[in-house]
Amino acid sequence: MRIGVLTGGGDCPGLNAVIRAVVRKGVQDHSYDFIGYRDGWRGVLNGATSRLDIPAVRGILPRGGTVLGSSRTNPFKEPGGIRRIRENLAKDEVDALIAIGGEDTLGVAALLWSEHGVPCVGVPKTIDNDLSATDYTFGFDTAVGIATEAIDRLHTTAESHMRVLVVEVMGRHAGWIALHSGLAGGANVILIPEQRFDLDEVCGWVTSRFRASYAPIVVVAEGAMPKDGDLVLKDGTSHDAFGHVRLSGVGEWLAKEIERRTGKEARTTVLGHVQRGGTPSAFDRWLATRFGLHAIDAVRGREFGRMVALRGTDIVRVPLAEATARLKTVPVERYEEVKVFFG
Amino acid sequence: MRIGVLTGGGDCPGLNAVIRAVVRKGVQDHSYDFIGYRDGWRGVLNGATSRLDIPAVRGILPRGGTVLGSSRTNPFKEPGGIRRIRENLAKDEVDALIAIGGEDTLGVAALLWSEHGVPCVGVPKTIDNDLSATDYTFGFDTAVGIATEAIDRLHTTAESHMRVLVVEVMGRHAGWIALHSGLAGGANVILIPEQRFDLDEVCGWVTSRFRASYAPIVVVAEGAMPKDGDLVLKDGTSHDAFGHVRLSGVGEWLAKEIERRTGKEARTTVLGHVQRGGTPSAFDRWLATRFGLHAIDAVRGREFGRMVALRGTDIVRVPLAEATARLKTVPVERYEEVKVFFG
Amino acid sequence: MRIGVLTGGGDCPGLNAVIRAVVRKGVQDHSYDFIGYRDGWRGVLNGATSRLDIPAVRGILPRGGTVLGSSRTNPFKEPGGIRRIRENLAKDEVDALIAIGGEDTLGVAALLWSEHGVPCVGVPKTIDNDLSATDYTFGFDTAVGIATEAIDRLHTTAESHMRVLVVEVMGRHAGWIALHSGLAGGANVILIPEQRFDLDEVCGWVTSRFRASYAPIVVVAEGAMPKDGDLVLKDGTSHDAFGHVRLSGVGEWLAKEIERRTGKEARTTVLGHVQRGGTPSAFDRWLATRFGLHAIDAVRGREFGRMVALRGTDIVRVPLAEATARLKTVPVERYEEVKVFFG
Amino acid sequence: MRIGVLTGGGDCPGLNAVIRAVVRKGVQDHSYDFIGYRDGWRGVLNGATSRLDIPAVRGILPRGGTVLGSSRTNPFKEPGGIRRIRENLAKDEVDALIAIGGEDTLGVAALLWSEHGVPCVGVPKTIDNDLSATDYTFGFDTAVGIATEAIDRLHTTAESHMRVLVVEVMGRHAGWIALHSGLAGGANVILIPEQRFDLDEVCGWVTSRFRASYAPIVVVAEGAMPKDGDLVLKDGTSHDAFGHVRLSGVGEWLAKEIERRTGKEARTTVLGHVQRGGTPSAFDRWLATRFGLHAIDAVRGREFGRMVALRGTDIVRVPLAEATARLKTVPVERYEEVKVFFG
Repeated sequence: MRIGVLTGGGDCPGLNAVIRAVVRKGVQDHSYDFIGYRDGWRGVLNGATSRLDIPAVRGILPRGGTVLGSSRTNPFKEPGGIRRIRENLAKDEVDALIAIGGEDTLGVAALLWSEHGVPCVGVPKTIDNDLSATDYTFGFDTAVGIATEAIDRLHTTAESHMRVLVVEVMGRHAGWIALHSGLAGGANVILIPEQRFDLDEVCGWVTSRFRASYAPIVVVAEGAMPKDGDLVLKDGTSHDAFGHVRLSGVGEWLAKEIERRTGKEARTTVLGHVQRGGTPSAFDRWLATRFGLHAIDAVRGREFGRMVALRGTDIVRVPLAEATARLKTVPVERYEEVKVFFG
Repeated sequence: MRIGVLTGGGDCPGLNAVIRAVVRKGVQDHSYDFIGYRDGWRGVLNGATSRLDIPAVRGILPRGGTVLGSSRTNPFKEPGGIRRIRENLAKDEVDALIAIGGEDTLGVAALLWSEHGVPCVGVPKTIDNDLSATDYTFGFDTAVGIATEAIDRLHTTAESHMRVLVVEVMGRHAGWIALHSGLAGGANVILIPEQRFDLDEVCGWVTSRFRASYAPIVVVAEGAMPKDGDLVLKDGTSHDAFGHVRLSGVGEWLAKEIERRTGKEARTTVLGHVQRGGTPSAFDRWLATRFGLHAIDAVRGREFGRMVALRGTDIVRVPLAEATARLKTVPVERYEEVKVFFG
Repeated sequence: MRIGVLTGGGDCPGLNAVIRAVVRKGVQDHSYDFIGYRDGWRGVLNGATSRLDIPAVRGILPRGGTVLGSSRTNPFKEPGGIRRIRENLAKDEVDALIAIGGEDTLGVAALLWSEHGVPCVGVPKTIDNDLSATDYTFGFDTAVGIATEAIDRLHTTAESHMRVLVVEVMGRHAGWIALHSGLAGGANVILIPEQRFDLDEVCGWVTSRFRASYAPIVVVAEGAMPKDGDLVLKDGTSHDAFGHVRLSGVGEWLAKEIERRTGKEARTTVLGHVQRGGTPSAFDRWLATRFGLHAIDAVRGREFGRMVALRGTDIVRVPLAEATARLKTVPVERYEEVKVFFG
Repeated sequence: MRIGVLTGGGDCPGLNAVIRAVVRKGVQDHSYDFIGYRDGWRGVLNGATSRLDIPAVRGILPRGGTVLGSSRTNPFKEPGGIRRIRENLAKDEVDALIAIGGEDTLGVAALLWSEHGVPCVGVPKTIDNDLSATDYTFGFDTAVGIATEAIDRLHTTAESHMRVLVVEVMGRHAGWIALHSGLAGGANVILIPEQRFDLDEVCGWVTSRFRASYAPIVVVAEGAMPKDGDLVLKDGTSHDAFGHVRLSGVGEWLAKEIERRTGKEARTTVLGHVQRGGTPSAFDRWLATRFGLHAIDAVRGREFGRMVALRGTDIVRVPLAEATARLKTVPVERYEEVKVFFG
């Protein structure tokens, strides 16, 4: 049996751990052959492959990124894409595909299986933890750890200068990283995309924190938005409700607004790509490895069109379609739970 | 309403995060009063208390250990212990007790409630993750992270000198830390208390790893035991099956046996107390904080004799008696799952 | 003898280590009294003080920031500033002042001594390492360590997506952090304020790195400037040579220019305040502690108008005037030395 | 010109950084050829070599250990060793050797040059920092950092249980790691091989620390020895003055003695090989890289029989004979300097 493996979407700590587990278990327990496709679906489209055997996965467990490369290429949007994919898989004599990726990558896998019968097994990956049907995705714990360590460091600067520190973390559509790192880092305000924020309320929390004679940390997901009036877009340029260009993302905008309204000095830190690089945390290595092992079980059991997922401490399999149907966002009660620490 | 809080058993990263969450939520949402008992049940026995209010919990979230101190004192083993406890709680006008601890501490809480009507709520704590009824306990993720980082470092020494490195990690009765850190650290052998190991098999894995021209890392829980012949006790002294004194714990014993049988140089590292100290990981801060918040909910709902617990991503409440009835050990199938990486 | 202590300028890991060492040695070896002034020179101006004794410095060694607070207040620019300083020092019966700070804070101390006879001893502090007369200042090693760890993480993102990653680090006037972290992090281009860069040359290095089939990391100090044409100012707004507003600092500007000229995708990370917060590195704790111990020796020897400094592994004393006379920038030969790694 | 490179002695973070710098500069600036010898002098003796070119050194900067392997083989102690070395170097057409190692490895290089005319340049390496003629060796800063982080963690365990924590760090003949990590970690007692310790005095410090109601950390170098009576040997077995076998090293012995004499509970942590593995600190990467660059300058300048060394912030060259003549130990005044923190 020959299995193709690909990694798609943004890079994420733990991708290499999945690849290693897949190959180790496939070769040792079942004598499967493997073929690595370069740069996600693009490699399957173009027939760009990598040798993938036990020597190729030696030492990659603790390394961030992906040895297979990644891209956001979607074969359904390429002319003749599906045909080329089927031809290349046939040429390479691939019996099954393991697709490791987020909503987009897995959405392609779901359709390839349901509409074209390409035997796919999915492994969920997102820094943002916003995939339904799994308790956690790998990469998230690492990102939260990095953000928390940064918040720990920023506390001392805030206190020493009695300044507001605004920390912008990843999360365009879901506030999981903000919620977890903000709580773990002892933030005084946490703003997430799921709940539009009231700037007056934010300034109230900032002010009350100063009254307790401490300096506040505000953690804001990049996709968080104010309730009304102003509109902040994240793409280098930003706009207010009147279409005026702003200098940058929500973090910088928020710091300026807080300064203007409270009279307190405020500074912004945008953590950016640092959150998604480097060695995975122990939790993510463990989760990614188990996902890889169970993906081989799924292939062996011919459970195609399914994805491995974490439920409590168990790895289960769920339909790919279910996992990619809708984003897993922060429920309102989970956000309310942490508000006791605001202000 | 006045609530007593105590921390018992070995120290554990996240204890302070629980204390802070309990006080923040209790004071801010419900105007509860708090009283801290010093050094676990000993403080209740002796009436040794600490002021516990919002200023007292400022800044303690990222700090390891416990600001309340800890001990292993069991009031059921003290003369007049229960009477003194009831008297002191009455004198202090305590309406409910939040007991944060492991099997022993929570076992006392369970009995105090079931047999003496003392209104107790439990918060589970153990580095070892061996408490039933909860997916994880806080402290465990931090310990696994520290052990994994150490294993990462030891790989380079093993490779540079083509030596066996034996790493002894915590876990007298349960192999969770060994299992998780061994997998995350890319160990070639993992030995746990739940499965007696065969020394010949261990040496076989070591030898096969060298044949692949890499140097092996062996992770062993302090409570792991060989299948037959030799008996290793961990208490500074150790004995073989014939009662001969050994130099130290299972790690050092194992390294000597591997050297003797395979002819390869072997070294031992005993991680020890480093695993349980210092700042908690983001995951542990998050879990401990949520446990604290939900413990207040349990007090408010008068759900005494119960313990907060993690199930998937939810915090639930379970009977204390259930949680302390038996140890949660590594199931055989979870151990079998990782054997693909051995050798 | 009573000694006043103050910390001025930007916060910096190691300030608390100095304060602790000063107090421990002063009290234990010489029975000195201490008085802490709040927020740098502002506290001396306004008579805002803190108790400063052995209990007050317990546990502060590993903590970032400064327990005394900081500001950039310059008493020479305040009406009646010098008079108020002398009056407050007289009222507080202060026999000597230990001023911990950078160029500005120490410049005030130098003048107070030389022109007004106020007995001052200086302790040099700057993240940027740009103070003359000392091999290193504390805070610098911590900042370089944080930046290096971030660069390590960004490599995996660069490689996985074959992107250029531009990392903007601190350093408005001196490129020490960029030079050290860039070299330690394996950057392919390092740009410093001391040497204007040629954008074509930078793009040449980027392109040649991609030809070797690796993705480049560009480390740029916030004060680095292109050779001609464009002018980048760091203050939230930026301008080109024609006065056109740019979106932000040199890092973001550079990424856009690289994208435009090479056709390669580029991303920017601005490390910002994360570099100056949190627990000091072991090196910085050691240096800061030794500076503190020797500052007490200087006070005891009545060596006023001087500053402690590191020379090799020795702590020496140098005139404050010498230390603050000119910035220590990166010599051209030190920059040339690392160019072998460019491209 | 063809240059041989070898790494000898114990592995040490930064070895790969030297190798990379040597090759990058040699190839790019001077078009030198390189040949890697496996496992230190053993590879030269046996003609065991590795390809060593720019692709071979890609990505090794942040990796601990040495890609060339290491051993403690001394060719002067091998039959016909010198003849075999000269023959192999002639056969490989090697024009110069860069030997990276500690006292032993460099001692061989010194003799090969002075007595046999083999053109050698040395690069100093020791975790222990005990090589004369250089301010620091790479590996030391990493080891101190790891030990300091461990001490930070142990503080919380000591405080929570009011226990003595004894931390045994590396250093058989020189106490540099103990001195630096003990000071950086806020230890209450530091014991080094250079100064025999008085057990009564140690117990006095321990007791006075408890009186201040804090728990002490005792940092002890593995080679530290008590003043009289007892004799502790480090080799798995230990002996007292009467030849009685002890259970292990000085750390465990010391904890037992402190328990016995002060009645306080004491625990030991032996850091061991964790101190020498894993990714080098930024400082060590910087120092190792600069050593490598300057070693090429030395080869080019035909300055054989010399070693690169750090003086302040400059890299200089010193005679190998001088560097290996005697151990650099902790001067008494440096030890006295830190005693203010004892007790």
